[in-house]
Amino acid sequence: MTASSPPYWWQREDLKYSSGRLALGGHDLEPLARCAGKPLFVYSAARISRKLRLLHEALSATGMPFRVFYAMKANRFQPLLCHIRSTGLAGLDLCSPGELQLALSCGFRQEHLSFTAGNLSAADLEILARHTRLLCNLDSLSAIRRFGELAPGREIGLRINPGRGVGYGDNERLRYAGGATTKFGLYEDAFGEALDLARERDLPVRALHMHVGSGFLQEQVGAWEEALAAGAAFLRRAPDVERFNIGGGLGVPHRPGDLELDLGAWARAIQRQLSPKALGGRRIEVRVEPGDYLVKDAGALLLEVNTVELKRDTCFVGLNGGFNLAPEPVYYDLPCQPAPCILREGDARCVTLAGNINEALDIWARDELLPPVEEGDIVALLNAGGYASAMSMNHCLRGDFLERLLV
Amino acid sequence: MTASSPPYWWQREDLKYSSGRLALGGHDLEPLARCAGKPLFVYSAARISRKLRLLHEALSATGMPFRVFYAMKANRFQPLLCHIRSTGLAGLDLCSPGELQLALSCGFRQEHLSFTAGNLSAADLEILARHTRLLCNLDSLSAIRRFGELAPGREIGLRINPGRGVGYGDNERLRYAGGATTKFGLYEDAFGEALDLARERDLPVRALHMHVGSGFLQEQVGAWEEALAAGAAFLRRAPDVERFNIGGGLGVPHRPGDLELDLGAWARAIQRQLSPKALGGRRIEVRVEPGDYLVKDAGALLLEVNTVELKRDTCFVGLNGGFNLAPEPVYYDLPCQPAPCILREGDARCVTLAGNINEALDIWARDELLPPVEEGDIVALLNAGGYASAMSMNHCLRGDFLERLLV
Repeated sequence: MTASSPPYWWQREDLKYSSGRLALGGHDLEPLARCAGKPLFVYSAARISRKLRLLHEALSATGMPFRVFYAMKANRFQPLLCHIRSTGLAGLDLCSPGELQLALSCGFRQEHLSFTAGNLSAADLEILARHTRLLCNLDSLSAIRRFGELAPGREIGLRINPGRGVGYGDNERLRYAGGATTKFGLYEDAFGEALDLARERDLPVRALHMHVGSGFLQEQVGAWEEALAAGAAFLRRAPDVERFNIGGGLGVPHRPGDLELDLGAWARAIQRQLSPKALGGRRIEVRVEPGDYLVKDAGALLLEVNTVELKRDTCFVGLNGGFNLAPEPVYYDLPCQPAPCILREGDARCVTLAGNINEALDIWARDELLPPVEEGDIVALLNAGGYASAMSMNHCLRGDFLERLLV
Repeated sequence: MTASSPPYWWQREDLKYSSGRLALGGHDLEPLARCAGKPLFVYSAARISRKLRLLHEALSATGMPFRVFYAMKANRFQPLLCHIRSTGLAGLDLCSPGELQLALSCGFRQEHLSFTAGNLSAADLEILARHTRLLCNLDSLSAIRRFGELAPGREIGLRINPGRGVGYGDNERLRYAGGATTKFGLYEDAFGEALDLARERDLPVRALHMHVGSGFLQEQVGAWEEALAAGAAFLRRAPDVERFNIGGGLGVPHRPGDLELDLGAWARAIQRQLSPKALGGRRIEVRVEPGDYLVKDAGALLLEVNTVELKRDTCFVGLNGGFNLAPEPVYYDLPCQPAPCILREGDARCVTLAGNINEALDIWARDELLPPVEEGDIVALLNAGGYASAMSMNHCLRGDFLERLLV
């Protein structure tokens, strides 16, 4: 049972009840849901800007040159991408030709973009080759070999795998690096061969890239720094590299008790491992590419309560949208926190929130202590800003929703 | 490691190598993939027809009246739906207004359809009310109350939950009924109230519905019969009911060693529990609504090998499509069996097949003993006919694919 009696653990200055009505970034949420008339994702532009500023402040304190790329795969809603561009605080991290085209559609220039992906097809590589000012981080000898044929002379990056990783707790589904061999990046034993091959194919290696996990919070910064140190060892073997992309993976709290990431501690770890002092005077541009960290807690999914009914020992609150709209809670065990948009009088009650999909796993939250709700009420599912709409499915033809940027 | 040396466990008369080329329903698969030029799902119409005939034969042997409804949520590819209609052997099982509209678009009549869903919104119920010849199985007191206001006099069904369930092994993600309380159906303790409420709201209850699990095979028929017996107890309390929809859940083998479902044994269990002899002379129409059973092993996803590369201790075979095209292998642990479309000379090799999505879990098969493949080859992922394209996501903007009905 989740402790959700006030003050709610997720409450913050721009996300709280005021006179019993839930507001995000100053926007009263209930009427937005009524106007949409169907499942609605809302994203606070101000929250995203604030997160970008926090990142910039923390990275500025390192004294190192840096750039931020938003990992578009977390949320590709076009007004949100345009908002990020308008801040001037981040480019985009891309992982497919489709994402590249969308980034350009939204007004980003190739210089603002960073491309990193594995298992690229010949067709993928041809499109990348045509975008001559795009930095591509390749992650296999095969890709180096094939890209060299298409784009000799092109500067590239290499994705490395330091063999260590961190993630949301011990979530095996989100393991990108670590003990077991993953599909990502070049391991230490192949790195020399990769450098030789790139040289031979006339692809000057100017950047390294690593991504060692997903959703790390304060308690994982130590493990993350160890991975960073292992990554820095690759850097020493590649003296022509000017930029080190240390990936994303910065997480946000999902549950009461989750300790927020201290960006200062995170940035100091970067400084300890990658500053000129750490690298014998060498000055490296640090690149980071957060996704979840920038958008997840800026978003909520607003659903209507269809059904409130006791089945045997369990009070089910049925909603007009299911896990297919935001798969992380059921598939990755990363819950979206439920909160009624208007508080009713009465005691909180232990309920199970379920969606409208004919699948047993279609449960938003189990044994949740929720303020009272009735059929027709609107419930917000918080933390639905990242890997939610972007991963939605039209399962059971129940995939219809709207999105709105709150500005 | 999967034993996949010939004869392959999945091989059958209409799915096998001939002169080293894999054919499904007599169609050579490799050129189909080349023509598509992108991920391609293929579905054998003949295989689906055969499965329907097998079902009809088994159910005919019971001597009971019966009807088959294909669970459209498994695969809603329109040519496939039209093929099923053209056989005359099945109607459709639906779970959303969108599925209802699509069924009608494909030429099905309301009389050919069966609707069962939970947590229905007011808008959903209004659409159902307008389709006056559609049988709707309601699964909560709330839905009975609300539907009664919209459609008094309408004959309905009730979805019950006998509190027992079976599924693909012990897969918790696919538990529809059983010990723990699920969101589905009316439990025994609420059934009397549901019948009273339906009477009071002038909704004659003419059908019962239950669905107690997913993907059961031969060894689970016993447990399934117990659930059926528990369901029959509800039937005795509802003397006006004429039809009993016993749901779907019939599975297909996914791994070597999985024992195929014996439809004869399954039908005999139905006969033991629901024949006039078992029900004191009462004659009930049996309705079944298989999804996977009809389409899963009729389908394959054809992908191209982009990359073959040893990373540390693991040989990765990278494909031009990821888990987002067919989420069951990673999210439900129900693998799609890989098979090269053209056999090359040489020994099988232990490989890990990975997709092109930047997610750690994007693995099609681990430690698979696969005949040799090279970059550019086409690999078929078998058993991709159900809950594959229907649940696909456009994650990373890598959701593009084609589908083709093989006739």
